[in-house]
Amino acid sequence: MSTSADADVLVIGGGVIGLSIAWRAAQRGMRVTVADPEPGSGASRAAAGMITPISEAAYAEKELFRLGRESQRRYPAFAAELTGITGEPTGYRQAGTLQVAYDADDLAILGEYQALQESFGIPARRLSARECRREEPMLDPSVRGGLLAADDASVDPRLLTRALLAAAAAAGAGIIRQPAAEILSAGGRAAGARLGDGTRILARWVVLAAGWSSGTIAGLPAGAAPPVRPVKGQILRLRTGPDRPGTASPGTGGPGGGIGGAEGPPGLLARSVRGIVRGSSVYLVPRQSGELVIGATQEELGTDTRVTAGGVWELLRDARTIVPGITELELTEAVAGLRPGTPDNAPVLGPSSLPGLVLATGHFRAGVLLAPVTADVITDYLVTQRLPDLAAAFTPERFARPAGRPPPGARRDSPPPRAGQHSTAGGTRP
Amino acid sequence: MSTSADADVLVIGGGVIGLSIAWRAAQRGMRVTVADPEPGSGASRAAAGMITPISEAAYAEKELFRLGRESQRRYPAFAAELTGITGEPTGYRQAGTLQVAYDADDLAILGEYQALQESFGIPARRLSARECRREEPMLDPSVRGGLLAADDASVDPRLLTRALLAAAAAAGAGIIRQPAAEILSAGGRAAGARLGDGTRILARWVVLAAGWSSGTIAGLPAGAAPPVRPVKGQILRLRTGPDRPGTASPGTGGPGGGIGGAEGPPGLLARSVRGIVRGSSVYLVPRQSGELVIGATQEELGTDTRVTAGGVWELLRDARTIVPGITELELTEAVAGLRPGTPDNAPVLGPSSLPGLVLATGHFRAGVLLAPVTADVITDYLVTQRLPDLAAAFTPERFARPAGRPPPGARRDSPPPRAGQHSTAGGTRP
Repeated sequence: MSTSADADVLVIGGGVIGLSIAWRAAQRGMRVTVADPEPGSGASRAAAGMITPISEAAYAEKELFRLGRESQRRYPAFAAELTGITGEPTGYRQAGTLQVAYDADDLAILGEYQALQESFGIPARRLSARECRREEPMLDPSVRGGLLAADDASVDPRLLTRALLAAAAAAGAGIIRQPAAEILSAGGRAAGARLGDGTRILARWVVLAAGWSSGTIAGLPAGAAPPVRPVKGQILRLRTGPDRPGTASPGTGGPGGGIGGAEGPPGLLARSVRGIVRGSSVYLVPRQSGELVIGATQEELGTDTRVTAGGVWELLRDARTIVPGITELELTEAVAGLRPGTPDNAPVLGPSSLPGLVLATGHFRAGVLLAPVTADVITDYLVTQRLPDLAAAFTPERFARPAGRPPPGARRDSPPPRAGQHSTAGGTRP
Repeated sequence: MSTSADADVLVIGGGVIGLSIAWRAAQRGMRVTVADPEPGSGASRAAAGMITPISEAAYAEKELFRLGRESQRRYPAFAAELTGITGEPTGYRQAGTLQVAYDADDLAILGEYQALQESFGIPARRLSARECRREEPMLDPSVRGGLLAADDASVDPRLLTRALLAAAAAAGAGIIRQPAAEILSAGGRAAGARLGDGTRILARWVVLAAGWSSGTIAGLPAGAAPPVRPVKGQILRLRTGPDRPGTASPGTGGPGGGIGGAEGPPGLLARSVRGIVRGSSVYLVPRQSGELVIGATQEELGTDTRVTAGGVWELLRDARTIVPGITELELTEAVAGLRPGTPDNAPVLGPSSLPGLVLATGHFRAGVLLAPVTADVITDYLVTQRLPDLAAAFTPERFARPAGRPPPGARRDSPPPRAGQHSTAGGTRP
């Protein structure tokens, strides 16, 4: 360890994961530098911000559910602390998630979700079709039934990123708006990185939190590069108009705004709604601002980040099937991001095979959910050189085992969508 | 007529109509001023640019068809002259229109179109389903048949606007980036206008070419205001990716680019395609740049210009039904514009009841098509005080007749869509 290091920790990547780690590490007294050409512009920018552990757990089962629940538990304090320090909102809102099924087959999938959740020891509240519509009057009458997760919450990832940037800076972390071009090593240990402009940043610890591109940075020894790949996701942002009479939803008699009363956001829905629609999945996340986010496609198309006609069409098709009133809302943005997928769809957390290089990537669709717990476990590791048990199933070494012997964190793979095929948000079938 | 006038002609409105008039009038030696806060930002910006007289003629029948055909005939020289003077392209391209029917009912509508066209003395070329796909291989196999209009053309309205601005300026017209706040009169005659910043522009002639807002400007005597209303239209812009392997269209084996060979644009279609899809209408207009424009909704929602989830969804639904390959294209823009509708869906051309005030508005969905002929007839009127016969059916006075006696230019009204309802491009049923 060189005493001439510029920082104790160099965090490569300034999305919600990298910034959360930078903030927490700086709070623990470490000198932290974050390198990112445009913080918050990657997967974080295209995330809906749902804090729903059960829907992510369908991939990797119990360990991931446990990690997600723990992160969910930490979220209220995490968000409150961020806002307390910075004065910036995060959009944190605990209004629950209502997962609904559209046809009989979808109802069967919902039943599998319920069974999965109960196998984790969490009782799920099953709602009839009528109860669903009582909770969310704008649901289509053909919705067959639902599952209510009252603990679920959401944040606005763009607000969260802004608050994290401010909090990290307030705690003393430096942000350098450059990409990491190469990991530097010295004496068999990561020693920092060369940035895009040629600057070298030396650090005792290098935390690789660059999302899908974490495996592509030069200088990574073969065994140390995390097996992450880009999984494209397209989402839409809709907005309830400011008191426009023309936006009233036909067929309901109700105004587009005001549903949900004083507690809920001024839009069509009181809480996040996940729909299983003819086997594909779509979610609608309302924000206090009146914004409604609809997501997400899941496409394996390399680094393509084009918003496509087909992606937008499928999201609108599925969303309007369960909430027809969205057709009257303004479509303000369509955006695509690349999420870091891994072979077992679970994150990669902890020390790599290159001493000094710590991985915090592969969060796939759960980066926002897992940010608080990821920041805590990685910071604990940086301080103590011991990874908390909570993260034991997610260490990089699980991918280093011989082929044919499944790692403990990878009980079940979800088949990736075919290249060129659009599939709306996966994770439907547990 | 005051000799202290600032201009011979003040044109209010700098869309394709106002700019075309300004250009032609300046070419005839008149001193011309155009007032528009943002030229080309209204209906012109949201237009697809089809030059297809038959599809517009469905509303007002033969007189409008005759006007449209005449404008179409003048287009090649109009576009060539613009480009010759300014060096700016207009995107003019005469590749024809293929109108296709999706189901049996749609085929019956196509037959009505054919009969209408033949009643105008224009033979229509009917194509079988197989012939349609031979002309346009990306058409869905379920397309039932088509009608080929080989004379049809298209322009890029944004390029056209830019070229017109340059040509008008080159001919000596002045552009003032201010709205007209009030029509000024003196001695029972229009004398100019007060602009948004308080400036007064005095002119011998005032040409009102402000699209849907032409009837709302202060200072218009009741009988002189044209009966125009805003009709919202949403369109989409798609783009073939620059040689991205991921954009190949599945199921055809062919690349997204290259269809149409050296003559056609580098996209999915060789020519404009209008689809009648389960009774609603959609069009796809390819450009040489690789852009594909899909339009258009037709909504009566006042001055609302929001892009809505429902509008985008319906356009994508109908377009992908007849050309499934669009799903792979990048969606680069969704935009809404307000077209100037009139009670008989035909334009209002010529002197109003206020001497000195000339109307050139109400072009509804045909502003781009009718720009050359409108510029010529209005300029002829300004020079000779006689309106060419071609425009006789479209004078403002047709709306001043007693109720119950239909004016000659208004043989048939198309029922406007219900408020709050989205309907893709009207004009389907002749």
